[in-house]
Amino acid sequence: MKPVWIKHATQLVTMASSSLTGPRTKEAMSELGIIEDGSLWIENDVIVKIGTTEQLEHDFADRAHEADVVDAKGKLVTPGLVDPHTHAVYGGTREQEFEKRLEGVSYMNIMNAGGGIHATSRMTREATEDELFEQSWRRLDSFLKHGVTTVESKSGYGLNLETELKQLRVMKKLDEAHAIDLIPTFMGAHAVPKEYKGREDDYITHIIEVMIPKVVDEELAQFNDVFCEKNVFTPEQSERILKAGKEFGLTPKIHADEIEPFNGAELAAKVGAISAEHLLKASDEGITAMAKSGTIACLLPATALYLREEAAQGRKMIDAGVAVAISTDCNPGSSPTTSMPLVMNLACISMRLTPAEALCAATINAAYAIGREEQAGSLEVGKKADVVMWDVPNYRMLQYAFGVNHVEAVWKNGQQVV
Amino acid sequence: MKPVWIKHATQLVTMASSSLTGPRTKEAMSELGIIEDGSLWIENDVIVKIGTTEQLEHDFADRAHEADVVDAKGKLVTPGLVDPHTHAVYGGTREQEFEKRLEGVSYMNIMNAGGGIHATSRMTREATEDELFEQSWRRLDSFLKHGVTTVESKSGYGLNLETELKQLRVMKKLDEAHAIDLIPTFMGAHAVPKEYKGREDDYITHIIEVMIPKVVDEELAQFNDVFCEKNVFTPEQSERILKAGKEFGLTPKIHADEIEPFNGAELAAKVGAISAEHLLKASDEGITAMAKSGTIACLLPATALYLREEAAQGRKMIDAGVAVAISTDCNPGSSPTTSMPLVMNLACISMRLTPAEALCAATINAAYAIGREEQAGSLEVGKKADVVMWDVPNYRMLQYAFGVNHVEAVWKNGQQVV
Ligand SMILES: [Zn+2]
Ligand SMILES: [Zn+2]
Repeated sequence: MKPVWIKHATQLVTMASSSLTGPRTKEAMSELGIIEDGSLWIENDVIVKIGTTEQLEHDFADRAHEADVVDAKGKLVTPGLVDPHTHAVYGGTREQEFEKRLEGVSYMNIMNAGGGIHATSRMTREATEDELFEQSWRRLDSFLKHGVTTVESKSGYGLNLETELKQLRVMKKLDEAHAIDLIPTFMGAHAVPKEYKGREDDYITHIIEVMIPKVVDEELAQFNDVFCEKNVFTPEQSERILKAGKEFGLTPKIHADEIEPFNGAELAAKVGAISAEHLLKASDEGITAMAKSGTIACLLPATALYLREEAAQGRKMIDAGVAVAISTDCNPGSSPTTSMPLVMNLACISMRLTPAEALCAATINAAYAIGREEQAGSLEVGKKADVVMWDVPNYRMLQYAFGVNHVEAVWKNGQQVV
Repeated sequence: MKPVWIKHATQLVTMASSSLTGPRTKEAMSELGIIEDGSLWIENDVIVKIGTTEQLEHDFADRAHEADVVDAKGKLVTPGLVDPHTHAVYGGTREQEFEKRLEGVSYMNIMNAGGGIHATSRMTREATEDELFEQSWRRLDSFLKHGVTTVESKSGYGLNLETELKQLRVMKKLDEAHAIDLIPTFMGAHAVPKEYKGREDDYITHIIEVMIPKVVDEELAQFNDVFCEKNVFTPEQSERILKAGKEFGLTPKIHADEIEPFNGAELAAKVGAISAEHLLKASDEGITAMAKSGTIACLLPATALYLREEAAQGRKMIDAGVAVAISTDCNPGSSPTTSMPLVMNLACISMRLTPAEALCAATINAAYAIGREEQAGSLEVGKKADVVMWDVPNYRMLQYAFGVNHVEAVWKNGQQVV
């Protein structure tokens, strides 16, 4: 494979700094490690050298003729984006339901008629592995076109052993076959399946005693997530599930405080979750606890928009010292989108992150939220060459000129894929 | 030129119906004129035949071999989108200001430091015609990529005779040179220029006695628009400007009730404006008056999002019998976007339009709002062949799978341009 030399980037945003370690908080979220007239030398799948174009012209004077040269004059170059929270592997779509809701039918009526999450669960149970694979493959293609090179994805539409395993096996296959890296999370505790209505604790026992051991045995997940919310799983039930997962080596994540304040953020800090998700209604105490425990807040402003909810208090969380990541929450009900660029825009518009913070939240902090900081989220020598070239001259423009996908080219593991 | 035959469209949305005339209101906004397994035969720049693929296979059996055939199986085909309200021809960009505002600097402080609209006015005055042309050309390219084939554009960043004329002349050149049709609106009354502070009526007299005659003499505009808002132009002043324009043959438009209820909608109805814009704070009386007068409501949900305002009451307006159109409001301050697909999504999400209504508001009603209903906004025999093929199987999916540009191909006047 020929080396790739991306040169003359008007802004090369590395997200790297020798003085920074761990998820970025406070002012560190604005340290983008910018190199003007920047250059990047890729060999095979890794980054070999980063610096100014002048530096690389000097260092690689003998080898310049070997490389595929990409002129990035007038362009912004950043790390590949990381989406740390999706439900992107599912069966069917729910556009009819979207229309019904706009026509005034309530979500409860839709649920009672077998719609909502039950519809996706049914369609996911009915889909073959091949169907799930094919449908999700196209979604991953769309992520890639939007500059995303690493995606987390959760099970949780099966809600029975067979289908949870099917979802996770499809993810494994996608991770192997598709350019995108797909990081799997087990989320059997996404909802209480109809079969267990009124017997929630029995379902939890089933998750703990049957599902988790099987998932771990087949090496199908790295994280264990739970929907801790009123009328779904209580903090006590959630803790039980997360602790059980931890014993099996699955790192905890929590869907927390989305609809009502429910001490989800506090629980995230208590069980040492790597991240807590949504947090629209997180309490001040919960935010403080997360800052102290180092739990990353994974915020989902596209979901808030789609559901017409007030977005999470991203600004306040950063000011309180919480490391913030952002994500599409790609799913068929509350956020059917694959656009991380839009999510960055919304992080600014709806949550008052600055353009720099939004980029940090979509790259290095997102990588930390799924344990991929060694491979992804920043441009550093030795890391995988996941790189995006944007048709804008600077990172501010990326957030300012909103609603448009400015991606011009994407490299994944050193290969140009867009 | 070879004929183009787009066939096997899973959904061909024509927006046409023999029983419908005039801007669509109420239930008529949901009549999409859908043909399943649809076909479209284009010759030169116009549509020659529309029907099912079966019909066209019969009618064009002898000529099928002549045509460039496009297989639209699995795809949605619609009229080219129409953006009826932009300020897309301007100098400079304001991404630094976007960042400052997110960091907490107030718009008033930015204005006082020479920012805000004053910055754009200064950069537009300083730009040469060629610079304006080049910068705006790229914006029109982006519109095209987002499925927009006709765009209205306003002057109003010059605020002096010379620069207003410069903006409008650039628009004329763009209309001639670029694939997109660009419909020009004179908006000398976009703001009171600094030179006239405290002498607003003198500026109005200048607009009426100097600017409008000159603009009309050079045939540079079809519409005359005014920013009727507290601390800008009063309803009385706005009426004076719009009536003067009308005498010169310029059809009135009004930026109305954006920031405060100001009887703008009422004035729009009174002066017979073809459209009223923004309308975030329009009164119930104003809405009723617009329904009666047939004034089209041109709603701008991307601007509301960007400014964190509650969007206009699109649902209520449609229910009240107002014909609703939607637009990007593309401008460097409050809506730096070219994405009509996102605007359609937001029309559903923020204003509770149904997917069908949003499509109507972005096509045929938008065409009516700028007097282009004879050429654009629907697929009908004899109309210009402005056509978009989308990588979704139906129109609901276009709105449901939000934040993503689903455009796969665009034809303008029968030529494939995307
Ligand atoms: Zn989720
Ligand atoms: Zn405007």
